[in-house]
Amino acid sequence: MKNSFFSQFAPQEPKFFPMLRNLSKSLVDSSSLLVESMKFSSQDKRNAYYKRIKEVERNADIQANNIFDELGKTFITPFDREDIHNLASTIDDVIDGINNCAKRITIYNPHPISESGIELCQFIHQGAVYIAKAMDELGSFRKHTSALRECCTKLHEIENQADDIYELFVKNLFEKETDCIELIKIKEIMQELERTTDTAERVGKILRNLIVKYA
Amino acid sequence: MKNSFFSQFAPQEPKFFPMLRNLSKSLVDSSSLLVESMKFSSQDKRNAYYKRIKEVERNADIQANNIFDELGKTFITPFDREDIHNLASTIDDVIDGINNCAKRITIYNPHPISESGIELCQFIHQGAVYIAKAMDELGSFRKHTSALRECCTKLHEIENQADDIYELFVKNLFEKETDCIELIKIKEIMQELERTTDTAERVGKILRNLIVKYA
Amino acid sequence: MKNSFFSQFAPQEPKFFPMLRNLSKSLVDSSSLLVESMKFSSQDKRNAYYKRIKEVERNADIQANNIFDELGKTFITPFDREDIHNLASTIDDVIDGINNCAKRITIYNPHPISESGIELCQFIHQGAVYIAKAMDELGSFRKHTSALRECCTKLHEIENQADDIYELFVKNLFEKETDCIELIKIKEIMQELERTTDTAERVGKILRNLIVKYA
Repeated sequence: MKNSFFSQFAPQEPKFFPMLRNLSKSLVDSSSLLVESMKFSSQDKRNAYYKRIKEVERNADIQANNIFDELGKTFITPFDREDIHNLASTIDDVIDGINNCAKRITIYNPHPISESGIELCQFIHQGAVYIAKAMDELGSFRKHTSALRECCTKLHEIENQADDIYELFVKNLFEKETDCIELIKIKEIMQELERTTDTAERVGKILRNLIVKYA
Repeated sequence: MKNSFFSQFAPQEPKFFPMLRNLSKSLVDSSSLLVESMKFSSQDKRNAYYKRIKEVERNADIQANNIFDELGKTFITPFDREDIHNLASTIDDVIDGINNCAKRITIYNPHPISESGIELCQFIHQGAVYIAKAMDELGSFRKHTSALRECCTKLHEIENQADDIYELFVKNLFEKETDCIELIKIKEIMQELERTTDTAERVGKILRNLIVKYA
Repeated sequence: MKNSFFSQFAPQEPKFFPMLRNLSKSLVDSSSLLVESMKFSSQDKRNAYYKRIKEVERNADIQANNIFDELGKTFITPFDREDIHNLASTIDDVIDGINNCAKRITIYNPHPISESGIELCQFIHQGAVYIAKAMDELGSFRKHTSALRECCTKLHEIENQADDIYELFVKNLFEKETDCIELIKIKEIMQELERTTDTAERVGKILRNLIVKYA
């Protein structure tokens, strides 16, 4: 089972690597916008950022669809195809998650976002940067797997840290917040942020499986 | 990779088409009941509709399982099998989504459902009708893909419109509703309705992939 | 398509059966702890149980990853590999679900958990026991499928009963609870418990497909 990811389709189909790389660039664009948007609390500003994030998300949808189309037309083995499909669609899920976070912030329009909320956004962005780095490594990872392994470890650590921050924050929220509607808004936003770090970790799990299978 | 969806298994296994068609008929039954149920606001009436929708859902579960059994017993290539499985189980997910909407309406029993809620139900029903139409096209779509493409486009448009209605409504809800418990009820119901239009769009995405692969 | 699950990979790869068996033992450990934790209502005690459940969950994650690694390195057909992957990852999802239930109980720290909540925990535990029993049967199920079929039926029944309890309880909750924040806590916990019985039923559906394909 020592097929190489590289030899299996890279030479014949090198286009998948740049396509995945571009998709991960959209992810980083989207997470950067999310982090930046946290500096503002006026509804207009939030709306403007949400619009930009939504645009990136729609564009990423098209990028992911192009990857799926390419997979449908290209002869590679079903298993490999599944892996690429899985990778592209999970990266797309992270971008969707970021869009949903921005959507909830815009819809619920909470009073200042908490420090913990800002931290979760930063974790999402860090995860995005590691995913983009991993996409840069894909074409050559079987020669030196350490860089890709590092990305997987980091995504796992980020998820754990985000989890701790989330738990502590929500516990406090339910103890102290007495305005029920404000509590719902904050809870819904924090849940979506935490879920997005989970999704980013799923990308790490897929990459980990690729290493086992192909490196 | 120019296998034809038709030539691949239709001649040998034409039974999948009527089975999928029947499943999509259950979907339309279910979405019709949901739309109809919106006319009533007494808890008894809502309960009665929920019971009927639940019955359709349980029946659809059996239909989907029959398709999976058939797939397990029939020799077709793994990839094609995956496509049929995916299609049947996602249509079943839409039916589950409709059931969950009716369940939440019955459990939470909100005072009159909003205009926006009724609109979302109508979008779900429109989506169901396009899915049923697409199932009618499956047997012959490679000769003329335009009808199937049209269904995919419509499912995408419906999801976008539903999204806009949802966002606007929830934004307003959080600005104006002061009764926290009523707010939770409405939010939970609207979320489930919106999620169901998302699931219907996923059927469109699967169909789109089928066109790329087999047409 | 009369491959035997047994002949296909058991002789060559008997290690998958003990691995799945061990994973299902972690599931039972985890559900036992959840049931036990229900006896206590002090935050400290709840915290202590959550920590133990989390430990089981992290351990199960490693067990599931070992199964995936083994699948990546072992030559078996893609379809069979998919089945084992699906089974292991869905059992892992049930363990994650239990962890999320314990997490929510710890974070939200509701005043006494309702009788219905305790019942849902017991259903989850019963489901876990049936899943473990099914894993014991995997190696020999094609000779006598009845024990495995029984497990699937039970998982389905458990889910239906859990659903009824959940619906009745939440309906009552929204009619009677006037403390909005307490209501949110309880609703969120009950939703996670109910979702976990759903996930357990998904294991039953996967097993049912295995019977159709291989028995």
